[in-house]
Amino acid sequence: MGEFDLIRRYLHGLGRARQDVVLGPGDDAAVICVDGGTELVMSMDTLLAGRHFPEDLPPFDVGFRALAVNLSDLAAMGAAPAWALLSLSLPMADETWLAGFTAGLGELAQTTGLGVVGGDLVRGPLAVTLQVTGLTGGRGFLTRRGAAPGDEVWISGTLGGAGAALATDLEGLATRDPRLYARFARPQPRLDLGRSLLGIATAAIDVSDGLAADLGHLLAASDVGARLDVERLPVQPDAVRLFGERQAREFAVSAGDDYELCFTVPPGREEDLRAAAGDVAVTRVGHVVSDPGLNFELDGARWQPDTIGWNHFEDPP
Amino acid sequence: MGEFDLIRRYLHGLGRARQDVVLGPGDDAAVICVDGGTELVMSMDTLLAGRHFPEDLPPFDVGFRALAVNLSDLAAMGAAPAWALLSLSLPMADETWLAGFTAGLGELAQTTGLGVVGGDLVRGPLAVTLQVTGLTGGRGFLTRRGAAPGDEVWISGTLGGAGAALATDLEGLATRDPRLYARFARPQPRLDLGRSLLGIATAAIDVSDGLAADLGHLLAASDVGARLDVERLPVQPDAVRLFGERQAREFAVSAGDDYELCFTVPPGREEDLRAAAGDVAVTRVGHVVSDPGLNFELDGARWQPDTIGWNHFEDPP
Repeated sequence: MGEFDLIRRYLHGLGRARQDVVLGPGDDAAVICVDGGTELVMSMDTLLAGRHFPEDLPPFDVGFRALAVNLSDLAAMGAAPAWALLSLSLPMADETWLAGFTAGLGELAQTTGLGVVGGDLVRGPLAVTLQVTGLTGGRGFLTRRGAAPGDEVWISGTLGGAGAALATDLEGLATRDPRLYARFARPQPRLDLGRSLLGIATAAIDVSDGLAADLGHLLAASDVGARLDVERLPVQPDAVRLFGERQAREFAVSAGDDYELCFTVPPGREEDLRAAAGDVAVTRVGHVVSDPGLNFELDGARWQPDTIGWNHFEDPP
Repeated sequence: MGEFDLIRRYLHGLGRARQDVVLGPGDDAAVICVDGGTELVMSMDTLLAGRHFPEDLPPFDVGFRALAVNLSDLAAMGAAPAWALLSLSLPMADETWLAGFTAGLGELAQTTGLGVVGGDLVRGPLAVTLQVTGLTGGRGFLTRRGAAPGDEVWISGTLGGAGAALATDLEGLATRDPRLYARFARPQPRLDLGRSLLGIATAAIDVSDGLAADLGHLLAASDVGARLDVERLPVQPDAVRLFGERQAREFAVSAGDDYELCFTVPPGREEDLRAAAGDVAVTRVGHVVSDPGLNFELDGARWQPDTIGWNHFEDPP
């Protein structure tokens, strides 16, 4: 049984069913409607050293990336960041490390309007847990459900860069190839894009575990399937330069960690979408079909990635 | 530098200063006021196996205790539990363990009206992080600040039981002495008492790290001191029976993990307080003075505990 099934089976329905819970476990974030009508969008993610990032990743990047990963969930819901709580597990009280970590986390918090309102510090293996809350501002929110046959499948930015970065000597890459390094170490949560997709996209998810896995979740939640054209995938150019097109495509489909948005849009909305996306590149990569499952095509033939997705309870790909 | 100084120095002021943050880091929980006036009370705590609970603690008790510890922060603020997010780090996908854990957490969530709205599951060393949000319902909230010279210092329930339980063979204790075992494994967050203290108490804190440490935080936040009468301490009777009065008093003052409330009340409010506390025993143990510092007295002489408090960046007592 995979991670998602375990979560689903044991977490759903925990505790009291509350009328103020608009959307419970199973999407990128939960949505709650409080008295007065304010909608809260809440998410929480843990990053463990040695599993989600290398033990020796500079503390600035650990802080930046931990917050980026969490804010990416808000981006996928179309919510605006508001507050965060931090729980940090550190092997020892290392002030230099803590100062770097705080600077990285603080930089992204500052530029996204987020206030860190509380936290907890424990002595233990290096791990960062953040809980973030966003606001919909009465403009609604996106979920994984809602994709319909005929919708187009779109992706923001590029894919495969983070996977390619992780497959190299990451430490050396920081000085040798900072653009590719940043694809892993400093992902940019697509917050503005997520907000601008409200009223345009029918469903959205962020690409944390790889396109195949995450789009698969969106399709399953929407009870549809999709066909993607591998040649259209916006593969990160440095990944192609270093690893060649074939391997870079594998990273794009299976490696994850890019934190781009994958979303579905009804046909005929391309102009609206491009206007809404502004400076963020968006690429149409395929379309939704009624048959379940995700199929890739290359040169008119079926194409299969070597590995699909990332399961924290199996060995990393 | 201690844990609290580290947190204070690096967490305070992280990210954007937001007008909707009523109370930021440094108290038992943060308080946020959203559009429409709803006040949210938010807290987050991590429990690591081997540090905050024994590795072999039954999963039911791990789940129950992890939520109790978090809800205790809401109790200290006088807030009513609403929603929680869970991040669970597990060494392996153990369904039996997960079922027990969920049952324990779910039981307390059910009885306290809490909905678990989301979560994350990662593979790693056993650790539980919960973020809980409570509501004030427009009735205000308690903080650590507000104690004034002349106020009385009160404590709910009994102290020292959890420390005594931890100092024994905990596993055997579960069958041999279930009442004492429960003082560690299934603390009862004083949610009803916390709510009923609104309008009566001037300041409150929950006793997680030991009375001396936690009351010390309350006094420092209120810029006052206190004198406590050691003979008045409501020492847990099983702790006295097993360890004798002297050692049990040490547990009560220094061991922590009891999750009772310590609060200050202006003189002349005892009748109101007892009516509000209902079935929960409350004991007056001393009074607030203007000179900073916490002093214990026994038989008219100064008394000192052997160890004070619990610092996660130093070795446990």
